[in-house]
Amino acid sequence: MVLSLLEISLKTASLYMKQPGVISGVPFANEVFKQCELKVDWHFLEGKFISAELLAQNKGKVVVATVTGPANKILLSERTALNLLARSSGIATQSRITKELADKSGYTGIIAGTRKTTPGLRQLEKYSMLVGGVDAHRYDLSSMVMLKDNHIMSTGSIRDAVASARKVCGFAVKVEVEVSTEEDAKEAIDAGADVVMLDNFSGNELRKVAQSLKNHYKGSNKSFLLECSGGLTLQNLSSYLCNDIDIYSTSSIHQGCSIVDFSLKIDEKK
Amino acid sequence: MVLSLLEISLKTASLYMKQPGVISGVPFANEVFKQCELKVDWHFLEGKFISAELLAQNKGKVVVATVTGPANKILLSERTALNLLARSSGIATQSRITKELADKSGYTGIIAGTRKTTPGLRQLEKYSMLVGGVDAHRYDLSSMVMLKDNHIMSTGSIRDAVASARKVCGFAVKVEVEVSTEEDAKEAIDAGADVVMLDNFSGNELRKVAQSLKNHYKGSNKSFLLECSGGLTLQNLSSYLCNDIDIYSTSSIHQGCSIVDFSLKIDEKK
Amino acid sequence: MVLSLLEISLKTASLYMKQPGVISGVPFANEVFKQCELKVDWHFLEGKFISAELLAQNKGKVVVATVTGPANKILLSERTALNLLARSSGIATQSRITKELADKSGYTGIIAGTRKTTPGLRQLEKYSMLVGGVDAHRYDLSSMVMLKDNHIMSTGSIRDAVASARKVCGFAVKVEVEVSTEEDAKEAIDAGADVVMLDNFSGNELRKVAQSLKNHYKGSNKSFLLECSGGLTLQNLSSYLCNDIDIYSTSSIHQGCSIVDFSLKIDEKK
Amino acid sequence: MVLSLLEISLKTASLYMKQPGVISGVPFANEVFKQCELKVDWHFLEGKFISAELLAQNKGKVVVATVTGPANKILLSERTALNLLARSSGIATQSRITKELADKSGYTGIIAGTRKTTPGLRQLEKYSMLVGGVDAHRYDLSSMVMLKDNHIMSTGSIRDAVASARKVCGFAVKVEVEVSTEEDAKEAIDAGADVVMLDNFSGNELRKVAQSLKNHYKGSNKSFLLECSGGLTLQNLSSYLCNDIDIYSTSSIHQGCSIVDFSLKIDEKK
Amino acid sequence: MVLSLLEISLKTASLYMKQPGVISGVPFANEVFKQCELKVDWHFLEGKFISAELLAQNKGKVVVATVTGPANKILLSERTALNLLARSSGIATQSRITKELADKSGYTGIIAGTRKTTPGLRQLEKYSMLVGGVDAHRYDLSSMVMLKDNHIMSTGSIRDAVASARKVCGFAVKVEVEVSTEEDAKEAIDAGADVVMLDNFSGNELRKVAQSLKNHYKGSNKSFLLECSGGLTLQNLSSYLCNDIDIYSTSSIHQGCSIVDFSLKIDEKK
Amino acid sequence: MVLSLLEISLKTASLYMKQPGVISGVPFANEVFKQCELKVDWHFLEGKFISAELLAQNKGKVVVATVTGPANKILLSERTALNLLARSSGIATQSRITKELADKSGYTGIIAGTRKTTPGLRQLEKYSMLVGGVDAHRYDLSSMVMLKDNHIMSTGSIRDAVASARKVCGFAVKVEVEVSTEEDAKEAIDAGADVVMLDNFSGNELRKVAQSLKNHYKGSNKSFLLECSGGLTLQNLSSYLCNDIDIYSTSSIHQGCSIVDFSLKIDEKK
Repeated sequence: MVLSLLEISLKTASLYMKQPGVISGVPFANEVFKQCELKVDWHFLEGKFISAELLAQNKGKVVVATVTGPANKILLSERTALNLLARSSGIATQSRITKELADKSGYTGIIAGTRKTTPGLRQLEKYSMLVGGVDAHRYDLSSMVMLKDNHIMSTGSIRDAVASARKVCGFAVKVEVEVSTEEDAKEAIDAGADVVMLDNFSGNELRKVAQSLKNHYKGSNKSFLLECSGGLTLQNLSSYLCNDIDIYSTSSIHQGCSIVDFSLKIDEKK
Repeated sequence: MVLSLLEISLKTASLYMKQPGVISGVPFANEVFKQCELKVDWHFLEGKFISAELLAQNKGKVVVATVTGPANKILLSERTALNLLARSSGIATQSRITKELADKSGYTGIIAGTRKTTPGLRQLEKYSMLVGGVDAHRYDLSSMVMLKDNHIMSTGSIRDAVASARKVCGFAVKVEVEVSTEEDAKEAIDAGADVVMLDNFSGNELRKVAQSLKNHYKGSNKSFLLECSGGLTLQNLSSYLCNDIDIYSTSSIHQGCSIVDFSLKIDEKK
Repeated sequence: MVLSLLEISLKTASLYMKQPGVISGVPFANEVFKQCELKVDWHFLEGKFISAELLAQNKGKVVVATVTGPANKILLSERTALNLLARSSGIATQSRITKELADKSGYTGIIAGTRKTTPGLRQLEKYSMLVGGVDAHRYDLSSMVMLKDNHIMSTGSIRDAVASARKVCGFAVKVEVEVSTEEDAKEAIDAGADVVMLDNFSGNELRKVAQSLKNHYKGSNKSFLLECSGGLTLQNLSSYLCNDIDIYSTSSIHQGCSIVDFSLKIDEKK
Repeated sequence: MVLSLLEISLKTASLYMKQPGVISGVPFANEVFKQCELKVDWHFLEGKFISAELLAQNKGKVVVATVTGPANKILLSERTALNLLARSSGIATQSRITKELADKSGYTGIIAGTRKTTPGLRQLEKYSMLVGGVDAHRYDLSSMVMLKDNHIMSTGSIRDAVASARKVCGFAVKVEVEVSTEEDAKEAIDAGADVVMLDNFSGNELRKVAQSLKNHYKGSNKSFLLECSGGLTLQNLSSYLCNDIDIYSTSSIHQGCSIVDFSLKIDEKK
Repeated sequence: MVLSLLEISLKTASLYMKQPGVISGVPFANEVFKQCELKVDWHFLEGKFISAELLAQNKGKVVVATVTGPANKILLSERTALNLLARSSGIATQSRITKELADKSGYTGIIAGTRKTTPGLRQLEKYSMLVGGVDAHRYDLSSMVMLKDNHIMSTGSIRDAVASARKVCGFAVKVEVEVSTEEDAKEAIDAGADVVMLDNFSGNELRKVAQSLKNHYKGSNKSFLLECSGGLTLQNLSSYLCNDIDIYSTSSIHQGCSIVDFSLKIDEKK
Repeated sequence: MVLSLLEISLKTASLYMKQPGVISGVPFANEVFKQCELKVDWHFLEGKFISAELLAQNKGKVVVATVTGPANKILLSERTALNLLARSSGIATQSRITKELADKSGYTGIIAGTRKTTPGLRQLEKYSMLVGGVDAHRYDLSSMVMLKDNHIMSTGSIRDAVASARKVCGFAVKVEVEVSTEEDAKEAIDAGADVVMLDNFSGNELRKVAQSLKNHYKGSNKSFLLECSGGLTLQNLSSYLCNDIDIYSTSSIHQGCSIVDFSLKIDEKK
């Protein structure tokens, strides 16, 4: 209500990116601008990496978009649009850095996020992972059934847990089982798990178990993927990578990672 | 507002089932009774088949539950609870009849529903299929990507459509492709489809193509399921069944099928 | 989210009707298309009966509308629009068939639906009855007070039930009472009921009681309508019809009735 | 958020009525207290008139209820509960005064409110009229169709307007027509109107036209009610009353009328 | 649903103001017209006082706006738009009258409303006060902390109540304390209250205490405002006014005050 | 839907904190557990700092709460509760570290957060700041008007911007103005600003300008607070601190800061 008396003439505002990183969150910012009845023109494609060099050439801030409309509407959109872009670009940037590290190590499989997303912002965060070049992992509880220690303890055995999950979710949905030993992994695969998550193994054990499982089922009719998760960070990822693991998933690319600073300034009349 | 002046003493009401069929929809009716602050006791387990014989022995109506609470609350719950039970039990009954027919024909695969559900009641209808013993197929757009003719026409080729779908949905979600020729089925499987739907084939063609595909990929590292869909009904299903097809899906078990009649009567004081 | 990467060039799609029946549900489908930002042109007026002959002349499918817009939006609208049209047209068709049957029997009164509608879709179903040419009966609890056995048992007598209903709903709203004997019908009319529902009478009794009541009150200042309900179907309706009954209401025109099949196909480029 | 640190020990608070009038709004206040998890005991029945004498005997404030619970919850409920009671009791009081005036004048028909209710509070205001002893008129657009000058101008004639309204609303819903001449009243009654509103007549004309209409249709099969509306107030009502008019409706009993003052005070520990 | 069959040709309607007062509520009426897809042109600025003279010159009704669109949409918007305008203009008018009275008495401070607003319409009512030229007081619980007798009794002392409020709301939000003695006022100011409300003092006491407090803190570093509230009306306000009081707040400008009558009529074709 | 078949016997689960930090977010986690109908017992008060030493003594994970209820409900609550606690505790921990740093530097004023909160989680984040011992700054747009460069450019001058803001928000709400020169600070204070934000000054300038302003207005009747904001971090804060500044606000305590790791494990039966 307070802002509504400030409605004045048409203004143009510049949306500045002020730190290096990947531009991400465009459709979410666009929705804010649309609801505020503003026009926006983006000067870069989403996914573009704005480098430190480019920033330096532009006195530390690059105009990534131009917003046009009544001043009061620009002010109304400002904080929400910036807060969404800052978080989305932070995740896309961290995702991209992590993916590049894995690529350089010669890893050919999938880097993925986890379900440790911010309540209310899962869609933005999963989307930002895709923009950053990593796999968003399952989107919600309907996308893939994941049976963790708590589920298995509740049903009695891995075999029973997989069977009862399959009964409900049918042929359409994959079933993943979290295990902590090679024996449990085999029980899960034999029971029909589509994905097996090797949780909290050390780097050496992980590589050994993964190779052993892939050999064991070679030529069988069992089709499965191996996933490694638990405590992975940009710092320790390299020590876990091996190509017998199909997916490495880590919340370090989206939880507690840095943001990228943006600002929105109404242009002075010339 | 009109009903609110009728609040009187505590009453007991009998919930009658008046036609043969499978009792289904209990958690949905329970939610109605709960929101109306009523107590309900069910006298049969959900999934129980109430036979014509049992009905005849009970003068055409079997008490399946007893509801207790203020008269105005019972009246408030009545119509919504009955309408939900009637539709849910109708679907569970039709599902069960269809599944039994397939079983008797020696079919060992999966009978499933389709996405042709009533807007707003998908959860109740998918649930009723499970109660009736058939597969609910994918629950929503997050559960499995389905590429139909419209999608393929929009992206240019089956190969491109599968590739772009996989890029977004990652390793967690299955991709199904609808095809109308054996060549297209192979293109889909080669592109990495998890499920191939053979749409609108005649019974003979269907069996021939299914067998040919299963033989072609025997021993390969391609893992896929075959689904048959399109115009299946209780009447014509038998002429399509063969065990090279993993799933038969039909909307005839939930769309435009009969309901099962229920009523709720406040018991007379004795 | 999955579909959003498929946004491509502008497409045109044909909405096909594939079974004979009354086109119904246009404003509901239009709302789906509008929310998906699509343009739609209808080639027939709502209420039009598409005959088996016309279908046969068009290889079993008649283009009833053309939808234009981005491919991803067409795909988004497809299933919901079709599911709504299928159900609405099924009800309008069954309504029309039932009304025509009554007309041919020389019945001059009203054929109506009931309150046994699908939770969440009452508006669509009541609307479809109007399109099919029958009376939608009361729209909701505010439209007319209906006192059934459960209400009367809760208040003690028909007289008391009518009096307390009238006190709350005032002069603006009609009061209907469900009765199962002629004596109860008279008690209801004397108490001021606007409509009396003769529930579950046999055809002969019904006609006798209706005539008797109309004669009894001829010339009095009592103004009332007689309604017959309970177990009416397309098959048995004729055996109940008589012009002393003002309204026959039946859920067979909207509950558990068949749907009409529609499909939506993106047109191939020429 | 600010209040949440004030959660302390259990308190008791007195709900005072501080002006004479009818206690009304109890279920609405109860809902506020319930959502705030408070217990409330009412010391008077809703509809009770608290007189100036009783107030004087209690130093100007009568304890009408006692509220018990944590202090922060009492504070949270206070303003909303009081604002609802003040408005509801104001309307019930004004309704009662108006009804008593009509009764004393020998009028035996119905005093009713109008549709000029506060957006968002219609249910509370209609309810308060009932508590005050007057008719709430139609509850919403589904309760009775009212054809006013704007509707009639849109359809062309009273006859056409009544016919098209009847077609849509069927037998269940009454149709009322607003007219400003005796000829229009007859056209409406002949077309099948259930209620005719004589709008903005002078007192003398009104009585003359009402008597003329009642005589004209005596012994006919037309059943109708006459309503008088337009500019009625407590001051001028008497000059309009006559028993040929079945309903007098006035917004003066609920729009712009006085409130009744209430307060809620946490009791000091003794 | 009933109105939807009345959709006809484009019409123009006149929005009449029929009693003297301040036009208020324009953005709220505009939102109603916008949701009904109507065009509206206002012929006066909001805040304009329509005098009895101007009304008399226009036969008792002044066209304040013109509304254009389909007849059924005009009918749909009519009642809600009128009900909002009537209440908003009533409050703005009463606010203006009260402010003018204070101005004429030589009072230079602030006249304000209170928190006794209609549940659901706070925004409209606070807005109407601004249009009428008075202060809207705090908008919601986040705008200013108000510590009343109930709060103070819950925390033990004025000092403690102010301290705990300040701890939670920080430097950004003002704290107001309601007191009934000069000593309590000093305790509140010493504890850091930003505003002190002198509640239910008589006119003479009030002036004495206000002067005494202003003298006591003259030259100190304490910055505070004095507010007078409790039972103020248009009739008794003058007897309380003095310039040592910074704010007089009264619910008489928005609670239980008169409405201003508006109507909307579709123009006859010429 | 998938989880609903796992409902089994009553289980107990331990909520572990696995990194040092301040426990925060208890009411938010409690709401999740409540909606899942679970019982929770907390073993520490919110705000408690769990040290690295205590973690080491408990093999790296401290049981901070015990959750009891059906296994499927525990699984349902798990991820949302953990995600909320992780973020809330991360902010409280960073807030506490920052506040302690300022305290050790001899700073006696206020450390505060900013409006750069996560869309949808503002309440949790502001709350976490309070738990960590810093000021939450204004809660929303109603709590304090903040006039930044964009607002001032829209209205023309600081003086005009303050005047128009004051007109709308009245006496109840504080007005803060962001300035970048001492002259602008004086214009703001003279215009009646309650708080002046010195934006993006260097440490030396800041201290000089703050001292100069405090001296300039000493003994005047102007009451104002000085705030410093813009680029403050845990690393550079010390170089800006001085007691002429009343508030230092920084988004580094809540945006892009680390989370604290929690897990929930169903206890094995003993």
